[in-house]
Amino acid sequence: MTSTSTKCQKWVLAKTMKGAATLSHFRLEEEDLITDLQDGEVLCEAVYISVDPYMRPYAERCLTEGSMMMAEQIARVLQSKNPQFPAESLVLANVGWRTLTRVSDMTSLRQLPVMGDVPVSNALGMLGLTGLTAYCGMTHVCKPKSGDTVVVTSAGGAVGSVAGQIAKASGCKVIGICGSDDKCRWITQDLGMDAAINYKTDDINAKLQETAPDGVNCFFDNVGGDLAGAVICHMSIGGRAALCGAISLYSDDIHHPSQGLSIFRAIVAKQLTVQGFNVLNWFSSWDVVYRALYDLVTEGKLRSKEVIYEGFDKLPEAFLKLFQGGNLGKIVVKIQN
Amino acid sequence: MTSTSTKCQKWVLAKTMKGAATLSHFRLEEEDLITDLQDGEVLCEAVYISVDPYMRPYAERCLTEGSMMMAEQIARVLQSKNPQFPAESLVLANVGWRTLTRVSDMTSLRQLPVMGDVPVSNALGMLGLTGLTAYCGMTHVCKPKSGDTVVVTSAGGAVGSVAGQIAKASGCKVIGICGSDDKCRWITQDLGMDAAINYKTDDINAKLQETAPDGVNCFFDNVGGDLAGAVICHMSIGGRAALCGAISLYSDDIHHPSQGLSIFRAIVAKQLTVQGFNVLNWFSSWDVVYRALYDLVTEGKLRSKEVIYEGFDKLPEAFLKLFQGGNLGKIVVKIQN
Repeated sequence: MTSTSTKCQKWVLAKTMKGAATLSHFRLEEEDLITDLQDGEVLCEAVYISVDPYMRPYAERCLTEGSMMMAEQIARVLQSKNPQFPAESLVLANVGWRTLTRVSDMTSLRQLPVMGDVPVSNALGMLGLTGLTAYCGMTHVCKPKSGDTVVVTSAGGAVGSVAGQIAKASGCKVIGICGSDDKCRWITQDLGMDAAINYKTDDINAKLQETAPDGVNCFFDNVGGDLAGAVICHMSIGGRAALCGAISLYSDDIHHPSQGLSIFRAIVAKQLTVQGFNVLNWFSSWDVVYRALYDLVTEGKLRSKEVIYEGFDKLPEAFLKLFQGGNLGKIVVKIQN
Repeated sequence: MTSTSTKCQKWVLAKTMKGAATLSHFRLEEEDLITDLQDGEVLCEAVYISVDPYMRPYAERCLTEGSMMMAEQIARVLQSKNPQFPAESLVLANVGWRTLTRVSDMTSLRQLPVMGDVPVSNALGMLGLTGLTAYCGMTHVCKPKSGDTVVVTSAGGAVGSVAGQIAKASGCKVIGICGSDDKCRWITQDLGMDAAINYKTDDINAKLQETAPDGVNCFFDNVGGDLAGAVICHMSIGGRAALCGAISLYSDDIHHPSQGLSIFRAIVAKQLTVQGFNVLNWFSSWDVVYRALYDLVTEGKLRSKEVIYEGFDKLPEAFLKLFQGGNLGKIVVKIQN
């Protein structure tokens, strides 16, 4: 008996991920994929692949040279021996940076949710893990109350832009911090945040003092470092900080202790709670969160912007863009129609 | 009608508290105290006065030049027109650095708890606010489970030595960090902590790796800064850090943001909860906590050491000792027998 196979492509780590991520960290490989499915299996092809900042520290911690990069895809089922995922349907597949996948472990697949009029790629963005991250970090860690002052960093980014809109929908005053005047305009004029700070050109302390004179109650952070330290020093008594990411520090040595941590004094004096979180801890509540996000979208309270790179070969470039700044909203890579 | 008065002494701030505290920050003043009591009032004299690190940031935030320093005293009632606090009884009086006080506001006074065989001065230490701070921070913020690895800084100090023993009584492995070999010996040999690190002479990272190879689950901190940052970088997934004080930073400018905060990455990656707290938030549970602490003392699981300075004139010197290190346990100033 002969088996049928086909060529597929995947991106693997060309070397251990340390320091700043560069194109030289990635290598494109071809693989012969046997496509004779067993009962229960599915063959699917990538339509959109998500790139997200978490992939940088994940790669450092968990991947060795030659390992495939991880990612969630929107994929089309080409062949199916699993009635849950019929041929031609679109699915969410947590299968990595690859064009074609034979899926045996069904925990890697999820049904695509009902998207209404929202473009399907948003299932990787504001109506996907990006939205879940923003929603759960804001709701369960920051716990904003109506009237609270909320600061969001990377406010023009995929997660930050959603987190800020969720706080806004909760009746808060929202101050977004980002790195360009374009982003500042977008988050205030289009997304309805109350104020924007350009951390590259504004005096952060003066601007925080001006926009949050009574202190910051909630802080949703994706950057870490000095910028996050400055916001923490401006928080009010009992404030809650959700540390979602630390993009400014991903190139550093995680084991190297830090210098001059005056934030400790602010955390003590103001009885702050500063919590790191992993969205996967709330994955079981996805259905409820999806409904909440989808309602916000249909009410016009949540919108997003996508930057779409075209072509499987563009994956590393799209990924590196995350760390170079300048992109509005969520980056996805379109592999095919 | 003539009124009776008597001279009393008090220590006031000679200048605004900024930078390192020095003797020149304090000035001894005399006051004429009218001792004709109204109904409900009490006249009491200081027996022991507590000095604690929190007084340094409190003075900076809340006191101006000429204000009296705050403190809790064990005081003896000299005259009483209040049946709750009869003459000759000992009371806890939150009245500051002064020899003699006419108390009108009864929220400043508390009954001295039953002390059994424990020297009464401990009502300012392990069986007082010091104990409450250690107990609530450890129990409510660190939430140690049996088998957890717990790190305590200032482990030879008043609060740290109690916090470490409470963790030990909860079945944890306790690593104490302090600044002298004497303290290291005391906390391991006398207080039963499992390991001690001398931060002045040991390699902190190597010692933490050696004594907590699986990571630190709970961290009770009184120092802040680089040392606390190093411990946070050694915490395990889901760890809880209770930030009680930041004695290494009290001379710094609280509004000045910090540098190179690689701890953010650890907080995110390990989903840590880092919480500053103020013991007064749990003051309403004092009776329950006192019973728990007292039981630990009678079971031989909680002990303390006191450094007793003698004389009202020694108050500033005793206070400054807190920031110079070298003292084992709790510092109190004995005013009279």
